[in-house]
Amino acid sequence: MPTPNKHRKFVRHTDDPFNGGMPLPLLCEHQVTPTDRFFVRSHGSCPTLDPARYRLAVEGLVEQPLQLSLDQIKHEFEQVTLDATLVCAGNRRIELMQIEPMPGELPWGAEAIGNARWTGVRLRDLLAAAKLQPAAHHIAFTSLDQVERQGSTFGFGASITLEKALSGEVLLAYAMNGEPLTPEHGFPLRVVAPGYIGARSVKWLGTITAQDQPSTNYFQARAYRLFAPQVRPENVVWERGLMLSDIPVNAVICEPEQNATLPAGSISVRGYAITGAGRQIARVDLSTDGGTTWIQADLEGNPQPWIWQLWRAEVVLAPGKHQLIVRAVDSAANTQPAHLRDVWNFKGYMNNAWHRVGVHIRER
Amino acid sequence: MPTPNKHRKFVRHTDDPFNGGMPLPLLCEHQVTPTDRFFVRSHGSCPTLDPARYRLAVEGLVEQPLQLSLDQIKHEFEQVTLDATLVCAGNRRIELMQIEPMPGELPWGAEAIGNARWTGVRLRDLLAAAKLQPAAHHIAFTSLDQVERQGSTFGFGASITLEKALSGEVLLAYAMNGEPLTPEHGFPLRVVAPGYIGARSVKWLGTITAQDQPSTNYFQARAYRLFAPQVRPENVVWERGLMLSDIPVNAVICEPEQNATLPAGSISVRGYAITGAGRQIARVDLSTDGGTTWIQADLEGNPQPWIWQLWRAEVVLAPGKHQLIVRAVDSAANTQPAHLRDVWNFKGYMNNAWHRVGVHIRER
Repeated sequence: MPTPNKHRKFVRHTDDPFNGGMPLPLLCEHQVTPTDRFFVRSHGSCPTLDPARYRLAVEGLVEQPLQLSLDQIKHEFEQVTLDATLVCAGNRRIELMQIEPMPGELPWGAEAIGNARWTGVRLRDLLAAAKLQPAAHHIAFTSLDQVERQGSTFGFGASITLEKALSGEVLLAYAMNGEPLTPEHGFPLRVVAPGYIGARSVKWLGTITAQDQPSTNYFQARAYRLFAPQVRPENVVWERGLMLSDIPVNAVICEPEQNATLPAGSISVRGYAITGAGRQIARVDLSTDGGTTWIQADLEGNPQPWIWQLWRAEVVLAPGKHQLIVRAVDSAANTQPAHLRDVWNFKGYMNNAWHRVGVHIRER
Repeated sequence: MPTPNKHRKFVRHTDDPFNGGMPLPLLCEHQVTPTDRFFVRSHGSCPTLDPARYRLAVEGLVEQPLQLSLDQIKHEFEQVTLDATLVCAGNRRIELMQIEPMPGELPWGAEAIGNARWTGVRLRDLLAAAKLQPAAHHIAFTSLDQVERQGSTFGFGASITLEKALSGEVLLAYAMNGEPLTPEHGFPLRVVAPGYIGARSVKWLGTITAQDQPSTNYFQARAYRLFAPQVRPENVVWERGLMLSDIPVNAVICEPEQNATLPAGSISVRGYAITGAGRQIARVDLSTDGGTTWIQADLEGNPQPWIWQLWRAEVVLAPGKHQLIVRAVDSAANTQPAHLRDVWNFKGYMNNAWHRVGVHIRER
């Protein structure tokens, strides 16, 4: 059964909460991802919100608490449109799950990413209207959804630092690719925090709270933390994990797909690469010999911060089994570790090991 | 013979230009590196400049070109003091040279780094006084030194983007660790561009030029570029290399030293870690079994952007030969590749492969 608002080939991991994405070859066909191909990550049911009755609260360490209607947000603040890529911290988790199972975690392939054109207002403009108090160091977001965790029900939450919140690139978006947000993407209003894990781009935004500490919401305080490889549920000290925000350099082969069978000769390889806040992709390398030698892929367009980098390359392969490997280098000269074991963590976040795709090449 | 202004154990790679640094155990003894232990990287002879006659020119795409004396710089702009780590793009090159020789490049160990307390004025304050024209997108620096390259003699040069130049963290520094700059560190005035390769922190600063393109100086346009592993001098296309600025995550074992002989039992391991612009170290891992298992090192103080992160760990080793390995993870979840071949480039820049130190453990 097709999913409402989504492409007929959209693949759901779970129905409620709704989570899913596109097969990779269809995902990377467009620089700006059509909304019907954009991955969906939800932690509770998709709320149905009446735009006429919707109010955004801005509160906490502010001199002037606000209650804003959607119309006020659209008309009292400057409208901004920008392209930004969102990627789930759990993107590529399924590869890490091959090393050790991760009960309760979604088995994302490399489809939990998309690059959209967002229209909305700058978070900093709203914060300026609310007049931040000097003690405000973090900006917290609470969703109007209802998530169940640890026996209680609450709205999904997150926070970003004040520095990030005051940068021009963080939007409160009411439109995606020129249309009002669809329900599953956060209608009527969501955060778009480019360069950060998708979990910080809170959907169905209900409340913005200026505070002195990061959000104590489960999804900021406990989930979405990166732990060392020796940490397991039984020995975890939650506070010791890295509270994820900025993302590392990564690259993925979208075509050919895993285990594809192709005729011998010149093979077209395509995919995406991505890096974190303010940085950009400098180079994408492709190897067909296990990482001993590399060729440089062609980058589409000019690399820019905040958005993914599509790339393509041609390789000539003789009949037999082959493994294609991709890695990227970003503008900070960061590159990716070769092996899954070098990034493994028990929650399965931030897998940026070299991406490998096995193909079968047959005689022409 | 001891080097003027330098620690008696300071090791020179070359005398003129003057290049050198400290043995690693002595380098990481202090959070703020004493000036006499701070590495020196020069590309020409150290100029002798008369502070009374010194003038800084601010020119190019500005409405109000400036000629400023040292007194004017010190008294007409707000004085700022900040800690910042500078690291040479060639730090740890000697490891890469073991794979293939790099004629004409300095064989830096891991000593080409230091963390100092810089006092000066913000670059953005000077640029505000000079009134940038809208076409200014890059800020170029030219040194008063004299460098010979490709048959001509010119001042060392570099540039940074306007965005970086207008950030608060870029200083024009006249003091280092509370004292006027020593000659080899750029007296009377130098750039300090935190989070960037040291080459952008131009010493003996003579001219600041606002321009629409990056500097065409040899050291910006040609040197200090990162190339793919398959690129060699005979097939290089200089424009295709990444113009280096922001630095990747890295970690180094300073103690014990390579090939140290130590008594069996508990071994104290110390070192530094570093990452790029605005990011901070999240974790330092140590392995004694080739990277199969890791322990988490203790970080000294609270991780902060712009400065290195000292760390320490204790490991228990039985008699025999062992290899200690360190790697770091930063706040963007970037980590280091395992092998030198994964970062090798013919100029030997930005080596952030896992740092490995072999030790001999003898019976007590």
